[in-house]
Amino acid sequence: MDRGRLEAFSDGVFAVAITLLVLNLSVEGPGTTEHPNPPLHQQLGHLWPAFAAYVVSFFMIGIIWVNHHALIRSIRAVDRTLLFLNLVLLLFVVLIPFATATEADYFPGNSKDAQLAMVLYAGVFLGMSVGFSAIFEWTLHGQRVYQPLPPEKHWPARARFVAGGLVYVAAFLVALFIAVAAFVLIALVAVYYVFERTPATPGSSDDGNEEEPVV
Amino acid sequence: MDRGRLEAFSDGVFAVAITLLVLNLSVEGPGTTEHPNPPLHQQLGHLWPAFAAYVVSFFMIGIIWVNHHALIRSIRAVDRTLLFLNLVLLLFVVLIPFATATEADYFPGNSKDAQLAMVLYAGVFLGMSVGFSAIFEWTLHGQRVYQPLPPEKHWPARARFVAGGLVYVAAFLVALFIAVAAFVLIALVAVYYVFERTPATPGSSDDGNEEEPVV
Amino acid sequence: MDRGRLEAFSDGVFAVAITLLVLNLSVEGPGTTEHPNPPLHQQLGHLWPAFAAYVVSFFMIGIIWVNHHALIRSIRAVDRTLLFLNLVLLLFVVLIPFATATEADYFPGNSKDAQLAMVLYAGVFLGMSVGFSAIFEWTLHGQRVYQPLPPEKHWPARARFVAGGLVYVAAFLVALFIAVAAFVLIALVAVYYVFERTPATPGSSDDGNEEEPVV
Amino acid sequence: MDRGRLEAFSDGVFAVAITLLVLNLSVEGPGTTEHPNPPLHQQLGHLWPAFAAYVVSFFMIGIIWVNHHALIRSIRAVDRTLLFLNLVLLLFVVLIPFATATEADYFPGNSKDAQLAMVLYAGVFLGMSVGFSAIFEWTLHGQRVYQPLPPEKHWPARARFVAGGLVYVAAFLVALFIAVAAFVLIALVAVYYVFERTPATPGSSDDGNEEEPVV
Repeated sequence: MDRGRLEAFSDGVFAVAITLLVLNLSVEGPGTTEHPNPPLHQQLGHLWPAFAAYVVSFFMIGIIWVNHHALIRSIRAVDRTLLFLNLVLLLFVVLIPFATATEADYFPGNSKDAQLAMVLYAGVFLGMSVGFSAIFEWTLHGQRVYQPLPPEKHWPARARFVAGGLVYVAAFLVALFIAVAAFVLIALVAVYYVFERTPATPGSSDDGNEEEPVV
Repeated sequence: MDRGRLEAFSDGVFAVAITLLVLNLSVEGPGTTEHPNPPLHQQLGHLWPAFAAYVVSFFMIGIIWVNHHALIRSIRAVDRTLLFLNLVLLLFVVLIPFATATEADYFPGNSKDAQLAMVLYAGVFLGMSVGFSAIFEWTLHGQRVYQPLPPEKHWPARARFVAGGLVYVAAFLVALFIAVAAFVLIALVAVYYVFERTPATPGSSDDGNEEEPVV
Repeated sequence: MDRGRLEAFSDGVFAVAITLLVLNLSVEGPGTTEHPNPPLHQQLGHLWPAFAAYVVSFFMIGIIWVNHHALIRSIRAVDRTLLFLNLVLLLFVVLIPFATATEADYFPGNSKDAQLAMVLYAGVFLGMSVGFSAIFEWTLHGQRVYQPLPPEKHWPARARFVAGGLVYVAAFLVALFIAVAAFVLIALVAVYYVFERTPATPGSSDDGNEEEPVV
Repeated sequence: MDRGRLEAFSDGVFAVAITLLVLNLSVEGPGTTEHPNPPLHQQLGHLWPAFAAYVVSFFMIGIIWVNHHALIRSIRAVDRTLLFLNLVLLLFVVLIPFATATEADYFPGNSKDAQLAMVLYAGVFLGMSVGFSAIFEWTLHGQRVYQPLPPEKHWPARARFVAGGLVYVAAFLVALFIAVAAFVLIALVAVYYVFERTPATPGSSDDGNEEEPVV
């Protein structure tokens, strides 16, 4: 059966979630003569953690979308289990604007609250990663993809997915001690995935060179 | 005629509604030295009803989308009546973020207000269910679907739809006495539909096994 | 050339605009012991103008979408002029949530402010109607549609479009005297269009019977 | 490979961003007897900079969408680099509602804050323009488009893109002295692009006449 509406709905959720990130950015006008607001340059200055969080979360959602795209298009037939797993993934994607706002509010402090905010931020990406891995696991069974991975490549592929998830576990743990370091770690994940393609997914050729289209 | 734009518009509404649920989740920053906000762990703790409501409403919208998808794709030709019935369904879907926010505000108390908030929550799902059943009833007449249900299966199929709607009526009534119980009931509906497929719809084969694609 | 992305973008805007209407609906939680909020039934009671405005605006956007769909699918080739006219139409569609919120705030009073709010509400629909008529006018020239209307039907078709627009002019004027009456008039437009199809558009058969698909 | 999901995701982001512009428009209700709000006509009067900013930003996003559409449809195969460049473009598109709200808050003053707000506004369009030019540059290499521009036309085409970007640089610089003038400049860009087609892009015929479909 066709994957069209699964992709359309998911694309819609990704597009809305990535755009809602902008709602975390706002300043106040000049105010009134009796109650003037702080000057704009000062307000924008205080907003820099929000801008940093915006950029990182924007690219993270963008990357999840790219990888989601690559994985889903390898799928031959959509079943109810896949729809449910996809909902689990999207549940965490939709939480990203909330986690981003919370993280930015406490950044770059290292109070217990700042650490907790970063734990939440890393935790949402961890949940997303688990949902993504579950969809990948689903593709390994039955005749669900066009070009199934040969069984001897299942474990190497799983290992790469687990490695991806371990980065978020690491960020989660680091956040308990140095909140800023966890943010840097997640930002590095974004940078890494911009330059590096996703772990080999079923249906993508094994010896892909860099010029090969991935979408 | 094609169903493409009906699906595209509906998918867009579903995607925006499900993503707007995140706007119900927000915390405040550390505040200022003179007016500090409550610590983050306390704020997040107070937010647990909102998280619970988020998860349930997220899966409910996801399930409505899945069932909507399955029903619409069985349709051969779109007419003005269907468009209107679809708008009625979407009217209630769009209300879900509002009903979710209201419900979460008063959860898990059992004051008159908490009961009213839950009545509103169950009522929105009841309205959605009525809209969905009306679309299903529309499919039973004329040459509107690819594989019409044989007439002798109309009443059994209707009975399954009514049974689905009765759960929301039950939640509606239970909410008048024990608000929390109504929420649990609706959460169980979500769990049920994740594992169980929608009532037999026209165009889906009668003896569908579990591996059969439903989308 | 294809109309696909014009439809996809427009559908997205329609879907977001119709869903943002829900942001006009909100209540407050129970509040604190020292500063309790009004009881929920009272808050919901005060919200009835917002609910009424929600329902009318929801169906108005839904109807505009249906008619937009019918008109655009008759088009053979998209050019830059059409894209611009479509943007003008969408500019007013996106204003509907704002006009709806403003109208609901002052409803059902008849102060100068209530009249002005209703003038704004009717004015946005009038602007939308002008944009829609401009797209229709565009379809009457050149080889732009699959089945051009014969020239002798241009003026009757225009007359029907102008008549549609005149209703909004009437609502605009009535709003200057009796705000509530203008709202009733616009609600009647919504009811009318739910049951009546759009004025004959190019490409739709002339002797369409009611069962004919319109989408 | 297909460009479908790249277009679907981008269209979704464009559609949400353009619709979120409406959130910058809001007035308050009549208030209570003890704390009445200013009369509506006064509130709407104070909102005129927000309306002006709404119209300009709406058409700017619309125009970016049109040009994005024309450029992407010339592309033969999507690769990871293009996806990343497209994300950079969208990052700035999503910032437009924020920049618009900030600009409108300080318009039409000429304080240091008003100039800074306009610098931000022009800067976001400049960033968008750089992202767009990067995508265009990507199309000039390899076998990436259906009808590659002949090499001797690369520099003239680049020159036109740079000229487009220079307008935003000019607005950026003008904003440092006369904020209002920068706004007028950007509004003129919108007017210009409504009537003038985008710089020749690969795949569009060289001798395009005005009736030729551009979408």
